[in-house]
Order: sequence, then structure tokens, then C-alpha cells
Amino acid sequence: MPASACPIVLHGYWRSSAAYRVRIALALKGITYRQVCLNMLQGEHLHADYRKIAPFGLIPMLEIDGLRLQQSLAIIEYLEERYPRAPLLPSEPAARARVRALAQLLACEIHPLNNLRVLKRLRARHGADDALVGQWYRHWCEEGLGALEAALASSQGTYAMGDAPSLFECCLVPQLYNARRYHVDLEPFPRLRELDAACARLPAFVEAAPQRQPDAPTTP
Amino acid sequence: MPASACPIVLHGYWRSSAAYRVRIALALKGITYRQVCLNMLQGEHLHADYRKIAPFGLIPMLEIDGLRLQQSLAIIEYLEERYPRAPLLPSEPAARARVRALAQLLACEIHPLNNLRVLKRLRARHGADDALVGQWYRHWCEEGLGALEAALASSQGTYAMGDAPSLFECCLVPQLYNARRYHVDLEPFPRLRELDAACARLPAFVEAAPQRQPDAPTTP
Repeated sequence: MPASACPIVLHGYWRSSAAYRVRIALALKGITYRQVCLNMLQGEHLHADYRKIAPFGLIPMLEIDGLRLQQSLAIIEYLEERYPRAPLLPSEPAARARVRALAQLLACEIHPLNNLRVLKRLRARHGADDALVGQWYRHWCEEGLGALEAALASSQGTYAMGDAPSLFECCLVPQLYNARRYHVDLEPFPRLRELDAACARLPAFVEAAPQRQPDAPTTP
Repeated sequence: MPASACPIVLHGYWRSSAAYRVRIALALKGITYRQVCLNMLQGEHLHADYRKIAPFGLIPMLEIDGLRLQQSLAIIEYLEERYPRAPLLPSEPAARARVRALAQLLACEIHPLNNLRVLKRLRARHGADDALVGQWYRHWCEEGLGALEAALASSQGTYAMGDAPSLFECCLVPQLYNARRYHVDLEPFPRLRELDAACARLPAFVEAAPQRQPDAPTTP
């Protein structure tokens, strides 16, 4: 089937962390999809046409099984329930709770404070310059990653929860990609860097990376 | 069994929205628990003793089944898996994805921007006064509630997903409680107010309310 006829469509943006999470999950599960790229810097996700199909006005949105799903963690939970191959959650409730909590520490405590619309408002309404925006970004990032590192320092294994990446790694890798862009010093987080490096060796993470997306700027 | 011997312990704070979500879920499922109250205004959740048992340093933390669970949505998913009575998620994957997405719009897009530590930092590092903090709060709240109202306007039924409250209502009611504190005009959100009012008639929501908690200030 040519990609253009693929019924699974991810509406995303190459640098959106939340879209990146979903790209990783799709790739890990071997689900073929095509992409519709919206330029978030130009506010294309706020256009009326997009809001008609994605009323939250947020990226990503996944068209699958005749549905239009929003919110990256909800999308990945759906994929997990409908496409159980390459599971992203352990089978046992206590371990599932732990993976979800680790993922939510990233998705609820770090990322929401540091996304584009928030940094924009800090500049527009609070007079923040590049330096202050950078401090804001790094503060929440370092605080959250510190808590994660503490929670994971005693964990063993190639990945946080065993011998395969989970929902947590789907969130961690985009967060660290983003942290590097904002010059967060990752030195104090050796376990997180180790997990990130393990993921970087997997084809699913390679193909989901921002620079590999069709809307990424081409570098000579 | 006297409450003091109850093996299920919620570490919370009367006004924490995330703890409030978990209290609602516990009450809806009829799970008996006791509370350990931490005074967030005095930073008790940041003390070393608490971080030893809750490394994220966040409220709530639930001790249950010999585990220590963090992150409100992960806690509620755990309760759902282990205590399936009074289900908080539908059984069908598409409907589950919808409930989770609605809950995450609150938990990932509104609440993280408006919690105590963020408002504190706006004051301390960005010179925000009461007026600017209030505008910040209301901006994210109104934007998020607007998206929710649009997504739910065509929904029927007493609750968002049918004839019983779900994970979504566990998040909505604390968010609206909080919004009222910050003088958000809820007039533009009739469907959300209707759902909130339906929940307010249920004993589980009544007993989970902030003013009913042991650490709430007593009013004469």
C-alpha cells in the first residue's frame, strides 16, 4: 500500500515532543502510518480547519480505526489496547502504575511548563527575554529530571522496566531531545542518559526522531 | 477496623487538585482509607522524610497493596485495574481513549500551569503581582475549559460518558473548584457546569471535597 493511501494518519510537527512520543510508539509497534505536518511556529494547529477535526487545537492527533484521537498518552494507551504487540506497559498492575507514573512525571510536570505556547506567553506578557525563558525552561526540566533520576537510580536493566522500552521511554527520549536544545546540563542524570542511549540504538527511535520527519528542515 | 489501622493511606493536602482527584476515585469505588495531611503551603511535601517515601516530592502519594504510588492519573488507573467495581473507564478502547484524553486535557494542559509551585515562581522570578498571576491562571484555565466545552457540547447524558462519572469527572470537579477560587468566569461553559452539578449530588464527590478534609480550616 502506498503511504498516501494509508488509513492511519498522524497530524504532527517534527519538533513537537508529544507527536514524537506517538511516533515512537507507532514505530515500536510496527504500525504503518502517514503524516500530515502542521507548522506549529506558524500556528497551523490553531486554524479552524484543524480544530474541526481536533477540537483541542493541539498536536498530535491520530486518525485510526475511524477515530480521531487526541492527547499523546491517551493515544498510546489506545495503541496498547488495540495493538498489543511490542507491549509498552507491563502486564502486572503495580508495574503498570510505575511506568505510568514515570511517564506522567515527564508529561504532567515538565513538558506542560515548557512548551511553545507557555514560553511565548512568558515573553509576551511577563517581559521575559531569552535568558529568563532559558532559566524557566531549565528550572522545571532539571527539577523533574532530578526526581526521575532519583526514582530510577537503583533500577537495573537496559530499559527502565526491563528488557524492552515502555511508555516511559516514549516520553523520556523526546524530553531529553528537547532538554539538549535548551542547553540543560544532563551530567547529573547518568541513569536517564543511559536509558536514552539504549533507545538511540533501536531503529524505532531512530526513525521517529525529529530530524527524520518530512517537515524537518534539510541540512546541507 | 478503626481508621488509624487502615492499610490504605493517602498522603495529601485538602486543597491539592491532584489529591482531590484521587479522593473522588477512592470514594466512588468505596475504598476505605486514612489520610496523612501535608501542609503544602509550608512545603511539608518537600521534606526529606516525605521524599524518602515519595521520591517525586509531589502530592498525592497512595500507600496501597504494599506499594507507594505517585501521580494521580497513574494511581486512578491502578485503582481501576485492581478494584474494578464502579468503573471509571468504559470497557471499549475508543471510549477509554476519549475519557483519558478529556482527563489529560485537564491534567496535562491546565493544571500543571496553575499549580502552587508555578505561581510562586512567577512571583519570585518574573515579578508577577496578584493581578498578573490571576491573568496567567485564568488564561490557561479558560483556554483549556473552552476546548473541553467544545469537545463535550454535543454530548448527552448526566455525565460525560454516560450514566456514571468517570476518570474525567474525577479531574473536572477539582479543576472547577480551583477555577472558582481564581474567579474564572464559568458562564461560557454550560456543559461543564452541568456535569459538575450532577457530580455534586453524589455522596462520593461530597465527601471528597476539600472543605470536608481533616486538614481544612474550620469555619465558625
